[in-house]
Amino acid sequence: MNKDTRHLVVEIEQLRTDLLAMGRLAEERVAQAMGSLVRRDAEALETVIGGDARVDRVQVEIDHRCFTLLALQQPVATDLRTVVAALKIATDLERVADLAVNIAEAGLRYLRHPPVKPLVDLPRMATLAVKMLNEALDAFVRRDVALAHGVLRQDDWLDGLRGQIFRETLTFMLSQPRRIEPATDLILISRHLERIGDHATNIAEDVIFMVSGRDVRHGAHRAAPDDTGERRRGTPVPIL
Amino acid sequence: MNKDTRHLVVEIEQLRTDLLAMGRLAEERVAQAMGSLVRRDAEALETVIGGDARVDRVQVEIDHRCFTLLALQQPVATDLRTVVAALKIATDLERVADLAVNIAEAGLRYLRHPPVKPLVDLPRMATLAVKMLNEALDAFVRRDVALAHGVLRQDDWLDGLRGQIFRETLTFMLSQPRRIEPATDLILISRHLERIGDHATNIAEDVIFMVSGRDVRHGAHRAAPDDTGERRRGTPVPIL
Repeated sequence: MNKDTRHLVVEIEQLRTDLLAMGRLAEERVAQAMGSLVRRDAEALETVIGGDARVDRVQVEIDHRCFTLLALQQPVATDLRTVVAALKIATDLERVADLAVNIAEAGLRYLRHPPVKPLVDLPRMATLAVKMLNEALDAFVRRDVALAHGVLRQDDWLDGLRGQIFRETLTFMLSQPRRIEPATDLILISRHLERIGDHATNIAEDVIFMVSGRDVRHGAHRAAPDDTGERRRGTPVPIL
Repeated sequence: MNKDTRHLVVEIEQLRTDLLAMGRLAEERVAQAMGSLVRRDAEALETVIGGDARVDRVQVEIDHRCFTLLALQQPVATDLRTVVAALKIATDLERVADLAVNIAEAGLRYLRHPPVKPLVDLPRMATLAVKMLNEALDAFVRRDVALAHGVLRQDDWLDGLRGQIFRETLTFMLSQPRRIEPATDLILISRHLERIGDHATNIAEDVIFMVSGRDVRHGAHRAAPDDTGERRRGTPVPIL
């Protein structure tokens, strides 16, 4: 291994460490937003809303590291795919942190009213979404395609929970129209959580492409033809 | 200009053409979804839902072109930033096309009921979102930083319209609880349109970085401290 190659290995290792740290920040923020909502802790929700700066800073650092790497080391093949995957994953994680803010904002509005019902399915969605994120990042670091495929499969459960919350909340609103405002926020929060799952799915797809050079984005991982995942993409096309 | 440099110029030019084509497809799909909803044309909405394959195919082609370019031409400086911007922009456009599908799906549910009201603000949001997308892509092709900054400013109007639709629709639901179901779908559609504006904003930010090497993502472009854009990056501000 010559000096340049060693340098590239070290840089890519650092990139993995940075992405894991960013992932942990993003996961924490989602968990904090949901935990504070369940505890009806408005002050803690305000903290989530005010605290995006660290995630943003890490994203800028990762982007910078990727650009420098591409420009100075000119990686090819797997290394190139890893750097591009890192750029995309950092974007996804930044949006996950944004969605934690959106959840906290809807949560604050929700807390202005008496509780609609004990929150059970939303925390369940949040736990699943954070688990998917965590596994997707783990798959990135370990270059584990099987783990990444596992993340793709879990997205259907998340979509199922979201659909169930939507139907139940609508029924509730029809029976108790004066509770419409807080109930609408529960629906919005379920959408935000579903989108976090979509970002975990994006990351898993990037990992599969990074490791195998195979593009599974456009539907190749669909479980069945009648799969109704909303955000899921169309027909598979091979690339590279 | 040697042969390699000429080749790089031609490749990057082709990348621009491809992104413009992809952008046009994505814009068309948003306009079709909203137009069909206004005309209450369920069949046309089904067409939007079924027709993501072309956008997906173009995205895969663009990704492929970017990877080949990075691996074989090893661009630096502005060229490198252009290729990375193209990768990110293609991701944003693919999600815009997905959001057109989400709009069409909510639209189909909406059409199962008598109209809630004449749709005025939603088509206005759609027109603005498509205009922002169009200008962001134009800014990419022309490397026009001023035009990109203009896109960032318009996002506040879009967020304002979304907030207004949310408040009005909640008021409507409170007064006519039996119309909750279709009204909820109007709120969801306004969120999808807002997210299309967010993607236009992402593209504009990528253009500014591509041209100037300056990162404006995390709040640097905010017009004023009381800016209330929700999804904008940096320190988010409470909505409503």
